[in-house]
Amino acid sequence: MEVNDHPLIMQHSAEELFSLYEQKFSIKDFDFEPVGLYEPVKHIMSIPGKRIRPTLLMMSCELFGGKVEDALEAAFAMEIFHNFTLVHDDIMDKADIRRGKPTVHKVYGINAGILAGDVMLSYAYKYLCKMPTRYLAEALEVFNQTSIEIYEGQQLDVDFETRMDVTVEEYLKMIKFKTSVLLAGSMQIGAIIANASKADQLKIYQFGLDLGLSFQIKDDFLDTFGEGAKVGKRIGGDILNNKKTFLLINTLLAAQGEDKTHLLQLLDETEEQKKIDGVVAIMRKYGIVESTCDKIEELYTSSLGHLESISVDNTQKEILRVMAEKVHNRDY
Amino acid sequence: MEVNDHPLIMQHSAEELFSLYEQKFSIKDFDFEPVGLYEPVKHIMSIPGKRIRPTLLMMSCELFGGKVEDALEAAFAMEIFHNFTLVHDDIMDKADIRRGKPTVHKVYGINAGILAGDVMLSYAYKYLCKMPTRYLAEALEVFNQTSIEIYEGQQLDVDFETRMDVTVEEYLKMIKFKTSVLLAGSMQIGAIIANASKADQLKIYQFGLDLGLSFQIKDDFLDTFGEGAKVGKRIGGDILNNKKTFLLINTLLAAQGEDKTHLLQLLDETEEQKKIDGVVAIMRKYGIVESTCDKIEELYTSSLGHLESISVDNTQKEILRVMAEKVHNRDY
Repeated sequence: MEVNDHPLIMQHSAEELFSLYEQKFSIKDFDFEPVGLYEPVKHIMSIPGKRIRPTLLMMSCELFGGKVEDALEAAFAMEIFHNFTLVHDDIMDKADIRRGKPTVHKVYGINAGILAGDVMLSYAYKYLCKMPTRYLAEALEVFNQTSIEIYEGQQLDVDFETRMDVTVEEYLKMIKFKTSVLLAGSMQIGAIIANASKADQLKIYQFGLDLGLSFQIKDDFLDTFGEGAKVGKRIGGDILNNKKTFLLINTLLAAQGEDKTHLLQLLDETEEQKKIDGVVAIMRKYGIVESTCDKIEELYTSSLGHLESISVDNTQKEILRVMAEKVHNRDY
Repeated sequence: MEVNDHPLIMQHSAEELFSLYEQKFSIKDFDFEPVGLYEPVKHIMSIPGKRIRPTLLMMSCELFGGKVEDALEAAFAMEIFHNFTLVHDDIMDKADIRRGKPTVHKVYGINAGILAGDVMLSYAYKYLCKMPTRYLAEALEVFNQTSIEIYEGQQLDVDFETRMDVTVEEYLKMIKFKTSVLLAGSMQIGAIIANASKADQLKIYQFGLDLGLSFQIKDDFLDTFGEGAKVGKRIGGDILNNKKTFLLINTLLAAQGEDKTHLLQLLDETEEQKKIDGVVAIMRKYGIVESTCDKIEELYTSSLGHLESISVDNTQKEILRVMAEKVHNRDY
C-alpha cells in the first residue's frame, strides 16, 4: 500500500473547522413547534461548547482528503447526539447543573427532558442522513453500534456503583463505551465520508479510542491529583463519592493487610478532608500516581501509533498529532 | 399509467405474515449484556401483541410485488420502535400497567426505563438498516420524519391537558401524529422496499393515515359509547379524566347556553356515574354520536379511496380492504 492513498488537500485549522460549524448550525435549527418540545432542545443546544466530536469528525474527513462540506451535517449529528445523551444522563444522575447552566429536566421537568432527548436523537439521525447516500449504510452501521455501546457503558457505570469488585478490565470497557466510542465513531464516520479504506477507518477509530481512554483516565487523575485552581472544581470529589475510578480500582487491588482494611474503612468515613487525605496517602504508598501516569502515557503513545500507521502523507497528520498532544498535556 | 405497474405475487395471508414475523424474531434478539440494560427491553418485547405495524409494513411490501424477506427486518424495527415509545410514554404518564403486565419503569425503575427505551431506538435503526441498501436513504427519511412527528404529537397531547380551547383541527393533528403516522409510515416503508413509485408510496401512506385516524376516533367513541364487556375496560374513562377526545371537543363546541354551563360544571364533578351520565346526555342531545360516526365513516371511506387509487391489480388489494373493514367494524 502506498503511503499516500488519499488526495492531499488544504486542511482547515481546528479554529476554522470550529467556526465553519458554528456559522452553519445554531438553535435556529430547532425553531419548530410545539414549543414545549423544542424549548428544552434549544436550552441544551444553546450552551457553548468545544464541539470536540464535530471537530474530530471534520478533521478525520479532511485527513483522508474528503470535503468538509460533505461532513458538516454529520458533525452536527454527533453534537446533537452527544447533547441528547447529556439530557438523559442528567435525568438519571439527578444532576442540577450542566456546564454552568441548570439541566433541562431541572428547568422543564423530567417528562420534557425525556421527550426532548428522544426527538434530539431523531434529529441526529436526520442530519446524519444528509451525507452523500453512497456512504450512508456504512456510516449508520458505525453510528448505531456506537450508540448501543454508549448505553451499555452507561449501564455498566450504574452497575459499578454497587460493586466493590470491579476489575481494571471492566473499568476500561466501561469508559471505552461511555466516552471513547463516540470520539472514535465520529472519526470513523469522517473517514467514511472521505471514502477511506476499511483498514484506515479502523486505524483512525483506534486512534480515537485510545486517545479517549487516555483522556478519561487523565480526568480521573486530575480529580484527585490535579490543582484545584486549574481543574476548576474541588479536588477529591471522586474519592468523596467512592467513585470506581481507575485510581480507586487499582488501589483496592494493590492495598494489602492493614492498608486494605484502612482503605475500606475510609470508604465509609464521613469527615471529608480526612477521607481524601487518607485515601490519597494509600494511593501514594502503592505507587498509584506512577502507574496511572504510565497507563495514560501508554494509551497516548498507542493512539499516536495508530495515527502513524494510517496511509496518508505524514504532514496531513500534524493537526491531529497537535490535538492529541494538547489533550495529553492538559492540567485542567 | 398502467393499472398494474407491479409484479403480481402470491400474497401471504395476515396470519401467515404474523407467523413469519413471530418465527423470526423473539426476545432472544436482545440476549445481550449488561443484563440491567437488556432485561427491561425483553420485558416489554415479550408481551404478546397483534404486531399491527409489522404486518401492515409486510402487507404493503407484498401489495407492490416486493419480497417479504426484504421487509421482515424493517417490520421488526417498527415493532421495536413502537414498544420504545410505549416505554417512555408509560414513564411520562406514570402508568403502572401495559397490556396486563406491569410497565417497564414500574418493575425496573425510571432510569432503567429511560435507558432501555434509548437502546431500543438504536436497535430499531439497526434492524431498519438491514434492508437492501438502495432503499435505505428513502426509508430513513420516512422513519426519521415519522418519529419526529410522534414526539410532536405526544407534546401536543400534553399541551391539550391544560387547555379548554382545543379545536377539532388541532385534535386531528395530534392523533395523526401520535397514532396514524406510524401506521402510515410503516406502510410507506413497505412500499419503498417493494420499489413502489413515489405516487403509490403517498397513496398507501394516505390509506394508513386515514385508517389510523378513523381507528383512533372509533377508540374515543367506544370508550364512551361501547359495551364494557366487549371493549374490555370501564366505559366512560375518558369522560372521568376530562380527556380532550373527539367527542368532548365537539361537545364543548356544540353545547349552548345552559348546556354549556352544565357541561363545564360536570368537568369538575367528583361523583363518577353522575359525571358520565351527565356528559353523555349532553353529547346525545347535540348529536355527537351521529357526527362522530359520520367522521369515522368519512375517514374509512377516504382510506379505501386511497387504496383504490393505487396502481396495482385490484385483487391484490383485497387483503388490505378486508383488514380495513375489520378495523372499521370492530366493537371492542
